[in-house]
Amino acid sequence: MSKRDKQYSKRMEDLQLELAGLNRWLQRSGKRLAVIFEGRDAAGKGGTIKRIIESMDTRGYRVAALGKPDEVETKQWYFQRYVAHLPAAGELVLFDRSWYNRAVVEPLMGFCTKPQYEAFLAAVPAFEKLLTDDGIILLKYWLTVDQKEQEERFADRANDPLKRWKLSPVDLASRAKYAELGRLRDIMIERTHTSSAPWFLVDFNDQKRGRINLIQHLLEQVPRHEELIPPVKLKRLKGKPKRENVSDKALWVPNTFVE
Amino acid sequence: MSKRDKQYSKRMEDLQLELAGLNRWLQRSGKRLAVIFEGRDAAGKGGTIKRIIESMDTRGYRVAALGKPDEVETKQWYFQRYVAHLPAAGELVLFDRSWYNRAVVEPLMGFCTKPQYEAFLAAVPAFEKLLTDDGIILLKYWLTVDQKEQEERFADRANDPLKRWKLSPVDLASRAKYAELGRLRDIMIERTHTSSAPWFLVDFNDQKRGRINLIQHLLEQVPRHEELIPPVKLKRLKGKPKRENVSDKALWVPNTFVE
Amino acid sequence: MSKRDKQYSKRMEDLQLELAGLNRWLQRSGKRLAVIFEGRDAAGKGGTIKRIIESMDTRGYRVAALGKPDEVETKQWYFQRYVAHLPAAGELVLFDRSWYNRAVVEPLMGFCTKPQYEAFLAAVPAFEKLLTDDGIILLKYWLTVDQKEQEERFADRANDPLKRWKLSPVDLASRAKYAELGRLRDIMIERTHTSSAPWFLVDFNDQKRGRINLIQHLLEQVPRHEELIPPVKLKRLKGKPKRENVSDKALWVPNTFVE
Amino acid sequence: MSKRDKQYSKRMEDLQLELAGLNRWLQRSGKRLAVIFEGRDAAGKGGTIKRIIESMDTRGYRVAALGKPDEVETKQWYFQRYVAHLPAAGELVLFDRSWYNRAVVEPLMGFCTKPQYEAFLAAVPAFEKLLTDDGIILLKYWLTVDQKEQEERFADRANDPLKRWKLSPVDLASRAKYAELGRLRDIMIERTHTSSAPWFLVDFNDQKRGRINLIQHLLEQVPRHEELIPPVKLKRLKGKPKRENVSDKALWVPNTFVE
Repeated sequence: MSKRDKQYSKRMEDLQLELAGLNRWLQRSGKRLAVIFEGRDAAGKGGTIKRIIESMDTRGYRVAALGKPDEVETKQWYFQRYVAHLPAAGELVLFDRSWYNRAVVEPLMGFCTKPQYEAFLAAVPAFEKLLTDDGIILLKYWLTVDQKEQEERFADRANDPLKRWKLSPVDLASRAKYAELGRLRDIMIERTHTSSAPWFLVDFNDQKRGRINLIQHLLEQVPRHEELIPPVKLKRLKGKPKRENVSDKALWVPNTFVE
Repeated sequence: MSKRDKQYSKRMEDLQLELAGLNRWLQRSGKRLAVIFEGRDAAGKGGTIKRIIESMDTRGYRVAALGKPDEVETKQWYFQRYVAHLPAAGELVLFDRSWYNRAVVEPLMGFCTKPQYEAFLAAVPAFEKLLTDDGIILLKYWLTVDQKEQEERFADRANDPLKRWKLSPVDLASRAKYAELGRLRDIMIERTHTSSAPWFLVDFNDQKRGRINLIQHLLEQVPRHEELIPPVKLKRLKGKPKRENVSDKALWVPNTFVE
Repeated sequence: MSKRDKQYSKRMEDLQLELAGLNRWLQRSGKRLAVIFEGRDAAGKGGTIKRIIESMDTRGYRVAALGKPDEVETKQWYFQRYVAHLPAAGELVLFDRSWYNRAVVEPLMGFCTKPQYEAFLAAVPAFEKLLTDDGIILLKYWLTVDQKEQEERFADRANDPLKRWKLSPVDLASRAKYAELGRLRDIMIERTHTSSAPWFLVDFNDQKRGRINLIQHLLEQVPRHEELIPPVKLKRLKGKPKRENVSDKALWVPNTFVE
Repeated sequence: MSKRDKQYSKRMEDLQLELAGLNRWLQRSGKRLAVIFEGRDAAGKGGTIKRIIESMDTRGYRVAALGKPDEVETKQWYFQRYVAHLPAAGELVLFDRSWYNRAVVEPLMGFCTKPQYEAFLAAVPAFEKLLTDDGIILLKYWLTVDQKEQEERFADRANDPLKRWKLSPVDLASRAKYAELGRLRDIMIERTHTSSAPWFLVDFNDQKRGRINLIQHLLEQVPRHEELIPPVKLKRLKGKPKRENVSDKALWVPNTFVE
């Protein structure tokens, strides 16, 4: 492990400890925190979310990664299916993409009409103000990646049969529209960056640095988060430790891990 | 990295490739696969599920880890809330604990009555037969861990502030009931092991070996799963790669990852 | 009002009083009651359900009238979407058609395959036994109507623009298959009539008589149901009764009911 | 039947025909219509909704009568549980009480805090504007009833064992607060009456007149609604009409309707 990797691991571990504290602060205070992760394909949204939740109590967060709207959802108020995933008191919800699909991907790929796009941009500030006025803390991160780096990641995915599923047709089609997507991103930020629901940019050309910076920043947006679970003292057990003796020996799965 | 760790990583990678194939086989054939993970606390259920899904297309599986039933659920047919999570055509559902709570944890801790326990054991084979007759493939794994090893893992959790949340009051209370739980496990297997919904035992005293063996075995239960995503060829882009130039420079998150 | 109509109204009122009692008995005892209404089109299922719930506390029952399965539902275990509507403790659920679609309408119209039909008939008794073993009271009514009467009702619907929506394409297509449907009904009853989930036939050639007989019978299937809400004594209010004086007079809707 | 009752029946029938047309217009145009019914207890909300849906295609509307929020709902964004019931394209949703609970009943009974009440009044116009900007037609009716009339209806409910369940503890407690509720109603209208989501008052001291006026007014708020289902021509069946001959004669329910 390189020195840099060691530094990264150490920092990440410290941050995860603080995230556990954030979690407990939410639960105790009943506050609600929604974090939106947006950015280009392969920028690092999924990986960052993975690190955030890695050591978290599984009851302490929810990840909302909504797919394409189904038949009924397309007929509803645009925000309706997202509203169903908003955090309740004490909850942290991490949005892996969000309602901002309509600000970038949808207009880029022609998945929405021009009036729908315009209506969305006009509606977002009012929608988010309702949420933040209600007390929801809403943070929005845009993860940046330069095209050179992005292309390398795409090539990596194309070559690795385990990662290939990540290359969606939309990913492939949007490669040639790098600059256009940038213009949509700028408009989005200009129209929807507000003091109560701000956008933050994080450089993800280096994934590890990006993750550290984002999580560090995220932790600084909330009051305090140092409370840890108090140490647990295990009582000494009586008697010799027992073996897992299962009656029905016929059901054992064979060992194929030859060392 | 030790030689053993390298062997483990290599085997796991191969298995994950096959799991991706399993996934695609499910989607193409429309088959449904439900896998139940049961076992003592700290046996390794969560970690195994994590490895299974690690490289899987996120649209290809669901993890069902149901908490305590809420007020309405306790008034319903016992199986009702689990039925809602059964796989639809093409889906893989991994149950991190399952309806078998009522066979082991609930009677152990006094969370159900004796008649409820008896009624459950009587009902399970008929319930599972309905599912398998309908074409659902149902596999049930019990992960074993000896008390000595389990105690070491508990101690590790108690010491690590990042893992401490995993030590629930139920975990702590069940430590002294190791043998009793074993008896409940034997009765469960005896009463609910059927040819169409069989139980399998996997030795998880060594986590890595346990994971390899379980996944290997799981893959052998379904017809074939070698189909991979065909290679993707990336078209060459024109022009110089572009930079992510964001208009609003004020929104950049500072770099705190000093190298 | 004819003498017969008066008798009907009187009997219905008495029965509704008993139904209110049934309702309170369910709520107090925590019992669960599911009633299935099946029968030919225009037999009178909807009208009967309407009378049953007419004077019931709206929190005391649910009507489950499931439409065609949606895309996801068709990929699930056949019974899954019905399971979601089963009564919880204290509830009464009235199924306006049910899982028995697959015993009559679907095979009649070719909406399911022969193996699906056979698998359904084989599965139903086990499925229903799970529910009744769990304590759910399950009653199944088939409302009969002779073809002459049915044709008159269809003609009435065809003529009345307010009822015309009730004539579905399936209704129209099944008219010529009256006898065939009868054979499917006989097979259904033979295969799925059990002591714990019995079928009952009610003659609905006369709707009023049919409703009275069905409700009377239904009431006799459950222990007792005479408990009524104790009388409420309204305290005398002080002062002169007030008028609803709304500030903004401009918002009044005009009166168009000229007497 | 009195002459007035005949007039009422005739008018209601005509209006129901137009409502069926409204329904078909919604389905064809994909428009969305939400109608809110508010008013004092016993004003006539439920009865009016009942008449509106009486002859409607059951697939054409939904009634949203939400009970008290459950444990999870109380921790969510106040509007969240209502959002889940908004109409999708082609749908009509009738709200029997609505988010306006927080404008009248909750502050009257002390079920919300003063800041919650104020926050609600501040949020409503923005919330409703989002919906109407999205194309949802939103109509809000307040049904008025003077105290003298209301007291008579309460007395009627108290005396009739079939209606007694309608007298909730909240109803009884609010009797003495008739004037106070009126003040809250005035504030609500002043703060939330907007051109895109207007309030309308309907005099329900006479229930029949109230219903006619409300439905007439409702119909006038939407473009046109005269389209009826085209007449259905029933093909002549061959052969003699058949009888419903059920094999298993033992299952007949006895006739108890002695004429």
